[in-house]
Amino acid sequence: MLAISMIIPMAVDLAVGNPDWKDFFLSSILTAFFGGMAVIGTSNIALNIVPRQGFLMITISWIALSLFSALPLWLCSYDLSFVDAVFESVSGLTTTGSTVITHLDKAPPGILIWRAMLQWLGGIGVVLMAMSVMPFLKVGGMQLFQTELSESEKALPRLTKLASSIGGIYVCLTIACAILYMMTGMTEFDAFAHAMSTISTGGFSTFDTSFAHYHKVWTEVVCIIFMILGGLPFVLYLKAVNGNFRPLYKDSQVRWFLSIVGASIAALTLYLVFHLGLDISEALRRASFNVVSIVTGTGFINGDYGQWGGFAVSLLFFLMVVGACAGSTTCGIKIFRFQILYSITRTQLRQLLHPHGVFIPHYNGKSMPPGVAGSVMSFFCLYAFCFCGLAIALSFTGLDFLTAMSAAATAISNVGPGLGEIIGPSGTFQPLPDSAKWILSIGMLLGRLEIFTVLILLTPQFWRR
Amino acid sequence: MLAISMIIPMAVDLAVGNPDWKDFFLSSILTAFFGGMAVIGTSNIALNIVPRQGFLMITISWIALSLFSALPLWLCSYDLSFVDAVFESVSGLTTTGSTVITHLDKAPPGILIWRAMLQWLGGIGVVLMAMSVMPFLKVGGMQLFQTELSESEKALPRLTKLASSIGGIYVCLTIACAILYMMTGMTEFDAFAHAMSTISTGGFSTFDTSFAHYHKVWTEVVCIIFMILGGLPFVLYLKAVNGNFRPLYKDSQVRWFLSIVGASIAALTLYLVFHLGLDISEALRRASFNVVSIVTGTGFINGDYGQWGGFAVSLLFFLMVVGACAGSTTCGIKIFRFQILYSITRTQLRQLLHPHGVFIPHYNGKSMPPGVAGSVMSFFCLYAFCFCGLAIALSFTGLDFLTAMSAAATAISNVGPGLGEIIGPSGTFQPLPDSAKWILSIGMLLGRLEIFTVLILLTPQFWRR
Repeated sequence: MLAISMIIPMAVDLAVGNPDWKDFFLSSILTAFFGGMAVIGTSNIALNIVPRQGFLMITISWIALSLFSALPLWLCSYDLSFVDAVFESVSGLTTTGSTVITHLDKAPPGILIWRAMLQWLGGIGVVLMAMSVMPFLKVGGMQLFQTELSESEKALPRLTKLASSIGGIYVCLTIACAILYMMTGMTEFDAFAHAMSTISTGGFSTFDTSFAHYHKVWTEVVCIIFMILGGLPFVLYLKAVNGNFRPLYKDSQVRWFLSIVGASIAALTLYLVFHLGLDISEALRRASFNVVSIVTGTGFINGDYGQWGGFAVSLLFFLMVVGACAGSTTCGIKIFRFQILYSITRTQLRQLLHPHGVFIPHYNGKSMPPGVAGSVMSFFCLYAFCFCGLAIALSFTGLDFLTAMSAAATAISNVGPGLGEIIGPSGTFQPLPDSAKWILSIGMLLGRLEIFTVLILLTPQFWRR
Repeated sequence: MLAISMIIPMAVDLAVGNPDWKDFFLSSILTAFFGGMAVIGTSNIALNIVPRQGFLMITISWIALSLFSALPLWLCSYDLSFVDAVFESVSGLTTTGSTVITHLDKAPPGILIWRAMLQWLGGIGVVLMAMSVMPFLKVGGMQLFQTELSESEKALPRLTKLASSIGGIYVCLTIACAILYMMTGMTEFDAFAHAMSTISTGGFSTFDTSFAHYHKVWTEVVCIIFMILGGLPFVLYLKAVNGNFRPLYKDSQVRWFLSIVGASIAALTLYLVFHLGLDISEALRRASFNVVSIVTGTGFINGDYGQWGGFAVSLLFFLMVVGACAGSTTCGIKIFRFQILYSITRTQLRQLLHPHGVFIPHYNGKSMPPGVAGSVMSFFCLYAFCFCGLAIALSFTGLDFLTAMSAAATAISNVGPGLGEIIGPSGTFQPLPDSAKWILSIGMLLGRLEIFTVLILLTPQFWRR
């Protein structure tokens, strides 16, 4: 599929007469060859996966996809080094949106559309993974989203049907977004490129200045709406398409998510009005665009929020790791884990008051299945540790405190831009040392695969018979 | 006891003819009056405490102690505002060591010895609290340290005996520390003042430049040894005094603590040698003093580590929240919680590989009692949330990102100095706005009382019959 999708940027470059089309062609052939070999080599093996193989398969396939996607970026006329090509491709597939490419405005269209497509493919990949394999592997509390179909005999055919429905919705949302972008004045090319990185909450743009290039209210409104749509659980859209809208506005995760977004926008707007003296409509516009862009991990930019002072920077820093709903294209800790944590903490406080009482934490109105609490709390702690580890490793490569801290947060949560002079909204990741780029690539994959999936491969138990 | 202890700074000021002695006298009378009333008013009530009262009593008594201890600071010739006096007194009693007093070198001796005494009293208070009441209240996994005596009939008399033994050891350690300080060239006054804030891992100094005032290797070596001694579980000293040294070096918490300290010192030394080009002995000296000072939450300073570049700053930032052993005078998350977390995560990863297996986490060679895992993990998460909340609130008062983040970390972990221009090693907390000082005072108490103890008072369940 990756090989086939490389034909699109090839065609685009061919149409405008850019010689990069040969690089896409070569990459496509190579990818098709190795991919085809893998398919043929495994075609006789019955699909009966145990968790151990699941973890290995997911991690290996994301690494393989990242490396093959990096091929055209490495080969093309843009002259990226190998580490830059891998960083850009990982950043694309994980829907992060951090970039090492400068002068995007002058980049050939093939590269630009390939970057957008990577995010789009990564986005749908994540949604399908969260729906099918993650609940089965019980990673970080994802077993909560286990539906009857994950374990039944007919799981695979029904899953294929479900996946194609979700895929259809994803395509429709992308097209709708692109059309609305065009109506606000984008060219067709830019509209599709931005639509693909909006709905996937990726954040790659075709301009160095991202959305500040347009500086149009309606373009930003469309973007905000589709970033939020990208942050809701896609399964609920499926129900809505079948006429059942109730779950979409009754779901407690959706309500929490919208409340957090609303409260953050309100706080930031007030701050911008009273602290920076912006008028209220301008403050609201900037606050809502940036809060939604950061909390969904998209990372589009319409100005340098690094200049807004301590409160804005701290708030956006913490929002980076929050993320949106499980089953969406977003990364980060995700809302349902905060809900579970809240429920556990409430139970814990009651238990302290009544040591002999029996209290059971709830989620979404039902009592929590055993194991979920421990699973979610370990996830939180491992997230914190991986963040600390990444930040310390990055600072060891010579980055300053703010750059190292925000780079670690933006990578593990797949947001995009960081804070500070270098990697902030007005910078790129290009000036970082190669070692930092490798560390960040690992961080992005770690965050995207919900940490456990990768870390489990590093335990001796995993490799023991 | 607080009223009686105020006689010491009074006597010191009287001896040098400083008029502040009247303020200490007045404060002592006031404290004795209100304290005496409280004792008389409750003398007929049989001691039979349920958890609910325990939480309230602890929180109220720490607030009351802080306010009465602030009296002499507020009244004295130093002309501190009310908020400054409270901040300084909370910082003292919680063994934090952040200060709002500038020109310490010219301060009258009464104030200086009072600050040291606050830390000393706070230090022993915390050790006794961790040994007696915290296990009973089951706060954040402290039930692990429940000894048979906490629940038996004869708990109180035996606890009193235990407390006086621990108190004796504390006094002996302080005197030993002071004598060693004197041998390295400190005056008697400075030696005792510093000994009191060393063994309590507090960090108040009698000089603006803290240990950089002396810049002597042996003074720092004595300091490092007694900071580490202050960071070990005091119960183990009791066993050692009774001839049983084995627990002191067999205890897994002690081993983890010393390993973390050793590894951090090694990493920082290497960095200072290769990055800043220091020679190895100077690098080792700086690294060991600062790592021990930060990880135990003491906060003594022998130079501005803020100038050492990203890695040093990031490492020390994360070490701030680690803390040392439970049952010591230190604050922070504490080592045993990291051990429990490690054990839980190991169990969790095994469970992912073998979904039908039964795995039980262990601590110190024994299987963990039920409830400990949830308790510890909630503690971690609440710690992270309180940190975020404090940082956001501080940034709202106008502090920049680095100042807000490090002030939140240093307050909740009771360390002392923060990072950046204002509150870093070469600054003080004096320039912060009053609102920030109040927030930090709350943060220090929150951290010192292990978070749960305070937060539980804010739940509606607590106040319901």
